[in-house]
Amino acid sequence: MGTTVADIGEDVLLQRIAERIGPPDPGDVWAGDDAAVLRSLAGPLLWTTDAVVEHVDFELAYCSGYDIGWKAMAANVSDIAAMGGHPEHALATLFVPPSTELDLVDDLLNGLLDAATNWELSVVGGDLSGGRDLALSIALSGTPAHEPVLRSGGAAGEAICVTGSLGGAAGGLYLLRNGFADGSDALIRRQLRPQARAEEGVILGTLGVGSMIDISDGLLLDLARLCASGGVGCDVDPAAVPVDPELSALRVIPAAPDPTRLALAGGEDFELLFTIDPGLESRASELLAEVGTAMTRLGTVTAGPPMVGGRNIDEWEELGWDHLKGR
Amino acid sequence: MGTTVADIGEDVLLQRIAERIGPPDPGDVWAGDDAAVLRSLAGPLLWTTDAVVEHVDFELAYCSGYDIGWKAMAANVSDIAAMGGHPEHALATLFVPPSTELDLVDDLLNGLLDAATNWELSVVGGDLSGGRDLALSIALSGTPAHEPVLRSGGAAGEAICVTGSLGGAAGGLYLLRNGFADGSDALIRRQLRPQARAEEGVILGTLGVGSMIDISDGLLLDLARLCASGGVGCDVDPAAVPVDPELSALRVIPAAPDPTRLALAGGEDFELLFTIDPGLESRASELLAEVGTAMTRLGTVTAGPPMVGGRNIDEWEELGWDHLKGR
Repeated sequence: MGTTVADIGEDVLLQRIAERIGPPDPGDVWAGDDAAVLRSLAGPLLWTTDAVVEHVDFELAYCSGYDIGWKAMAANVSDIAAMGGHPEHALATLFVPPSTELDLVDDLLNGLLDAATNWELSVVGGDLSGGRDLALSIALSGTPAHEPVLRSGGAAGEAICVTGSLGGAAGGLYLLRNGFADGSDALIRRQLRPQARAEEGVILGTLGVGSMIDISDGLLLDLARLCASGGVGCDVDPAAVPVDPELSALRVIPAAPDPTRLALAGGEDFELLFTIDPGLESRASELLAEVGTAMTRLGTVTAGPPMVGGRNIDEWEELGWDHLKGR
Repeated sequence: MGTTVADIGEDVLLQRIAERIGPPDPGDVWAGDDAAVLRSLAGPLLWTTDAVVEHVDFELAYCSGYDIGWKAMAANVSDIAAMGGHPEHALATLFVPPSTELDLVDDLLNGLLDAATNWELSVVGGDLSGGRDLALSIALSGTPAHEPVLRSGGAAGEAICVTGSLGGAAGGLYLLRNGFADGSDALIRRQLRPQARAEEGVILGTLGVGSMIDISDGLLLDLARLCASGGVGCDVDPAAVPVDPELSALRVIPAAPDPTRLALAGGEDFELLFTIDPGLESRASELLAEVGTAMTRLGTVTAGPPMVGGRNIDEWEELGWDHLKGR
């Protein structure tokens, strides 16, 4: 038996693929960011793709077709938002086991199309395929409101900030997987019907933040990616991380995970993590408050290694979610 | 147990989805053609997506990673060709079981990227996901050489023509599935390493054919789709269908399927089926001959029902491949 993809993990395999597909055309950004940037005669185009798969990203035991369609679209909108862009057109590829009930497919379409309406984008086509597991893959295009915001744009001295609060989606997943479906509607909703920070991404992109990424795989892992992409370090205070207040609902469950841990390593919150010139920080906070979204400063970009609470980020045990290793 | 997707089949479900996602923006074409047409400031953009899935579209018992990567790209290029367009940028989503050997993924990437080089397009990004089955979904953009050629453009009196020959890919699949892997290299190559008619699509689109579709699911099924989309009928002579000459290799196998049947109903040949003003027919034939591709007239577009060999096309037993019913 040779080396498997689980042995090397998602990020190493992605890196391996990224090295194969470059170098990009002048002005383009291909692999390695939340979305590709393609320069066209009509200006830069953003293009991303993200999939959800049964038994990997969801179980039908605890989520509806509507949830699947909504969440798959939210994840893609979040990627466009993290580039400072508006979503525009989507293609949806649906993999359905032949025994799937038509009602489930209709429900999934309802979720997908309601999400499209919610974020003012159009589903313009797609593909239908068989398969043993239900899965939905979406390709989404968008246009940057200003210049595309890259992961690589961070500079030492910038503030590191995050929108909203963290850990709620992971808390909801814990409740669903452990039979506490009545535990907290707010947490479960955060897991099954996530809100992409579409308006916030456009606000931050227009204001001119240095770098940005959406938190889909956990704060620590996505922070590590942001630093690595920019060739910068950070000094982040874990106590500053805005823990989702709804996680207090877990306190009544003896074995429940620690809320701070969920906020640091839990994925799928789809908040935006960005670096910004400290002179723009209060303006960003005001503009986000106007759309009802909080913003929290976690620390500072440095020239040194990525440090969280005085430890190198690589030394944190539970970095986040790896789609191949399943942890 | 309610109605399942297998009960209604691929085309009815696609129709159901198409009805939900329209109506398109002015000048756009969304669901229902080989690719979507999106009008932009820089001119029309073509956008398509197509996936291949283990146990549905291929088995690792008889095909390599390279074959999977190549074929998935060929199928998408064929869709852009059927719109009369050049392929440009691709996103690739790879679903890999964690136990997949890295060598297989590398081989798949080789096939995918060699196909991209062959058709002069760029893979600009993608997504990586777990899953029980290996699968590859590609989203591909392109630009029409002239105006996009739609399925719906056929008019009574036009000639119905097809490029190349048919049935070879299905013949190759028969050999692979039934343990005759030494049966015919040409047929097996046709199944595993298909050639999309990229140049031919651009030639026909530039010349100005009436309507076009690629034959991915079998001549009869794709002809029925072309007629239905244009609201036209046809009079096609099954004896005129260009049967892949390599299918003669099947003659030595007693139970092998009839070559004519494979040419009528076998999928994945990725030839182009088009309707054309009879005054342009000989010019099209000359231009295709210049790139080494034969063209055969199968019949004529009519105002009446779609007829093949004097029978309504719906009465032909074996219409073609349905991805959900698996026949």
